[in-house]
Amino acid sequence: MIRWNNLDTVASYQELLQTAPVDLVAAMTGENGAQRVQKYSIPMAAGLSYNYAAKQVDDAVLKALVKLAEEMQLADKFEVLYNGEVVNTGEQRRVLHHLTRGQLGEAVVADGVDKRSFYAEQQQKIADLANQVHSGKITNAAGEKFTTVVQIGIGGSDLGPRAMYLALENWAKANHTFKMEARFISNVDPDDAAAVLQTIDVAHSIFVLVSKSGTTLETLTNESFVKDALKNAGLDASKHMIAVTSETSPLAKSDDYLAAFFMDDYIGGRYSSTSGVGGAVLSLAFGPEVFARFLEGAAAEDQLAKNREVLNNPAMLDALIGVYERNVLGYQSTAVLPYSQALSRFPAHLQQLDMESNGKSVNRFGEPVNYSTGPAIFGEPGTNGQHSFYQLLHQGTDIIPLQFVGFQKNQMGRDVVIEDSTSQQKLCANVAAQIVAFACGKADENRNKSFAGGRPSSIIVGEQLTPEALGALLSHFENKVMYQGFVWNINSFDQEGVQLGKVLAKKVLAHDTDGALKAYSDLLNI
Amino acid sequence: MIRWNNLDTVASYQELLQTAPVDLVAAMTGENGAQRVQKYSIPMAAGLSYNYAAKQVDDAVLKALVKLAEEMQLADKFEVLYNGEVVNTGEQRRVLHHLTRGQLGEAVVADGVDKRSFYAEQQQKIADLANQVHSGKITNAAGEKFTTVVQIGIGGSDLGPRAMYLALENWAKANHTFKMEARFISNVDPDDAAAVLQTIDVAHSIFVLVSKSGTTLETLTNESFVKDALKNAGLDASKHMIAVTSETSPLAKSDDYLAAFFMDDYIGGRYSSTSGVGGAVLSLAFGPEVFARFLEGAAAEDQLAKNREVLNNPAMLDALIGVYERNVLGYQSTAVLPYSQALSRFPAHLQQLDMESNGKSVNRFGEPVNYSTGPAIFGEPGTNGQHSFYQLLHQGTDIIPLQFVGFQKNQMGRDVVIEDSTSQQKLCANVAAQIVAFACGKADENRNKSFAGGRPSSIIVGEQLTPEALGALLSHFENKVMYQGFVWNINSFDQEGVQLGKVLAKKVLAHDTDGALKAYSDLLNI
Repeated sequence: MIRWNNLDTVASYQELLQTAPVDLVAAMTGENGAQRVQKYSIPMAAGLSYNYAAKQVDDAVLKALVKLAEEMQLADKFEVLYNGEVVNTGEQRRVLHHLTRGQLGEAVVADGVDKRSFYAEQQQKIADLANQVHSGKITNAAGEKFTTVVQIGIGGSDLGPRAMYLALENWAKANHTFKMEARFISNVDPDDAAAVLQTIDVAHSIFVLVSKSGTTLETLTNESFVKDALKNAGLDASKHMIAVTSETSPLAKSDDYLAAFFMDDYIGGRYSSTSGVGGAVLSLAFGPEVFARFLEGAAAEDQLAKNREVLNNPAMLDALIGVYERNVLGYQSTAVLPYSQALSRFPAHLQQLDMESNGKSVNRFGEPVNYSTGPAIFGEPGTNGQHSFYQLLHQGTDIIPLQFVGFQKNQMGRDVVIEDSTSQQKLCANVAAQIVAFACGKADENRNKSFAGGRPSSIIVGEQLTPEALGALLSHFENKVMYQGFVWNINSFDQEGVQLGKVLAKKVLAHDTDGALKAYSDLLNI
Repeated sequence: MIRWNNLDTVASYQELLQTAPVDLVAAMTGENGAQRVQKYSIPMAAGLSYNYAAKQVDDAVLKALVKLAEEMQLADKFEVLYNGEVVNTGEQRRVLHHLTRGQLGEAVVADGVDKRSFYAEQQQKIADLANQVHSGKITNAAGEKFTTVVQIGIGGSDLGPRAMYLALENWAKANHTFKMEARFISNVDPDDAAAVLQTIDVAHSIFVLVSKSGTTLETLTNESFVKDALKNAGLDASKHMIAVTSETSPLAKSDDYLAAFFMDDYIGGRYSSTSGVGGAVLSLAFGPEVFARFLEGAAAEDQLAKNREVLNNPAMLDALIGVYERNVLGYQSTAVLPYSQALSRFPAHLQQLDMESNGKSVNRFGEPVNYSTGPAIFGEPGTNGQHSFYQLLHQGTDIIPLQFVGFQKNQMGRDVVIEDSTSQQKLCANVAAQIVAFACGKADENRNKSFAGGRPSSIIVGEQLTPEALGALLSHFENKVMYQGFVWNINSFDQEGVQLGKVLAKKVLAHDTDGALKAYSDLLNI
């Protein structure tokens, strides 16, 4: 029997509040620090590991977190979720994105179909289309191969797929699986579509229109923009466009598209990278085999996220440590710092995933909660960030927990030796150095050059950013966010907070305004 | 006589703490809200205006902020700064970036030269080079024109110039001043340089190596990477590279470069977009006239920032409201939300500018301060952000102040009408709607659909994002950050917080490690 309780009503949370704070400087200095790095580590899928040695935890805090996980029934809640219970209660929807990459538990039958089979079938159809495009079986009207794929979508239909594309673009080039360049149009700012169209060859471009509802204003507007461009180039738009949408959407059975692929209401936008939303563009760009490897990595990580032993479950423990930092230590934001240029937009994806899921003030029953929920998330790749905002992370007046990601090997295999080390070694040396600098600090007589330390971080380390590793990384954070939502007893799968702005924007466009709304409309000359 | 006092020692700050909090929902609802939009606005340069109607201020709070500005001698401090006093006391340096775009006060003579003349002369030399490259007077060894410019730099030598390039790329294309495509290599991750080199035609590329000291490890490493690529292509690297550095740097008088242009220690990296650091790449990409217009916008905005009437000084008032939000209302972060795809990397630039300048815990005398200093800064362009992290901004448990930027017209002039409005109108309608939604909220019986409101924002509005408007925008934020540093009595112009990581990274590369540092080095296989 699942109990959906608020965090501040459970005994184990009160116990957690009583745990003694950990002196991170002391814990991480000397041989004790080295032992923590050995001990506080959990294997992940695809050769990754989650290392939390530099977090402000010790065995006593971890014990309290394990108790909290058990009292909050985290593993049970995940189980009912992947077995198809309506966990997204606000919208009365199941939460099935895990099934897009594997069968985690029982068969889930909804709307009369087995959902795992449905998602797998869509993936196969996408693979078939991608293969036909690559082989030249599907071409433009002149019989020429498509060379570019352009995704039109916003939010979850943009950020995740774009981040994944960038993450694997150079890996695919180095591994000879690169098929087509991908571009993305998202913003309703007309300059976004115009700029992309200006730099592509529309005659050899295939467009992927992504909207679950088929009614997303930005996306439909950009579709028109693109259709105009195709028409002006004397092309038949319907031969250049495919749709990824739900079966009930207006896009589903339209002659406007070469093909339509389906997802459903059980796949939230920000959780849709492993569905057709990511599948179409990534299969076209890199080939279906690469996309399948990405799904395998995610599925393997999902299996680890089921583990009922908290200290062997990286997503669950990462979630719990985040709750400890947010609700006990009072930290308000988290920085995501991948030491990999390929992950340049991964923080933007996590920003949506985390903040849209857990930026909530009411519990799953609509009652206000009395504790902090999701933190603000931001980040940039290292070492770039070191030359930017790290100053504040090291010496600012607030402590901001850090999530590092690093890989032993780069993706492209080209490198240069300067001062006896490769660039990749310098990159890795920097992430190792930063973790220790943040944790241990360093006293200096000149207070301006003094580092207090005590700034917590964890790192996910892998051998190389492969498709499998990327899938595992994605899954890890999806499951972490889900577990935090369970702890906070909120619904991580709706997003009612985006509605009011939409309603007011419609009023502005209808000139149905007064007061400040009219004044701002005038200011912007609408 | 300048008094450098801590914020919590001045009487006006104690008065500010006593002001009654403003109920933003009440203030912004009905006709009162419309009047605030009219009244709480300050003209900026280049047709911009700073509107703070939706901030949690009223006439009483503003009066207290004016008193604080006077007691903290903000205008006097700016005056001594631009007149050349050594305001960067930690590094014993003047702070002269304003002189790169105009003469703000008295002539500043340092190292035996008039610094305004020096910067103007460098700008002219860069303009001459750019014109020669564009006219084909300077070519590659085969006598062919250069078509691409690649900036090699990190931190301030990357983020600002890159953000400015992206901000004007499409404007320049639409206005027929686009000369050359620009690319950027920054990260020590070897995949960064390899990926850029893979997609450019090195034989027709000119590289701009930017490092003030001439010793930045990432930049020198990437230079070697590029030189190898040029050599492998049978090219003479010295015919493809220019340097932007200081006169005393090892790069200054080297035969390795076609030309060298100079800045100096009085231009901090994050304040260097208007020096040769931004000037070379932007002049090559768009022509020197466009870069000159960008400088004019910045210079005009600097003039406004001198205004001793706080309520007519947009940068100073913006700074003071930020201090009020940080130190009185207790908000820890700020989101920057430009409704312009061209400003996609402007938030990343501001993130460095603000967090590296004001993420400090000691005052300018090296004494710990007892109050919060710089906030965390993050952001993405709207409307994209609306489909991402706005959920937390609207309904999360923390309040995050917002900085909107919007323009009446787009840059490229192409648009499409859907449902009776253009994309640009939809974009503008959305920013107007968001400001009101955040400020006023909306009650709903379903608490999950309820918006508390009271979430403060300001907006900078302009007609179009032109070079002048971009210069004004840049200057505004530089001066805002400077004024906040004055209020907090910190040195906004050094960055000692980046040093410890560098020292430890060198130890790792020298295998001079023990404890946790050795353990992390092993984990990363260095």
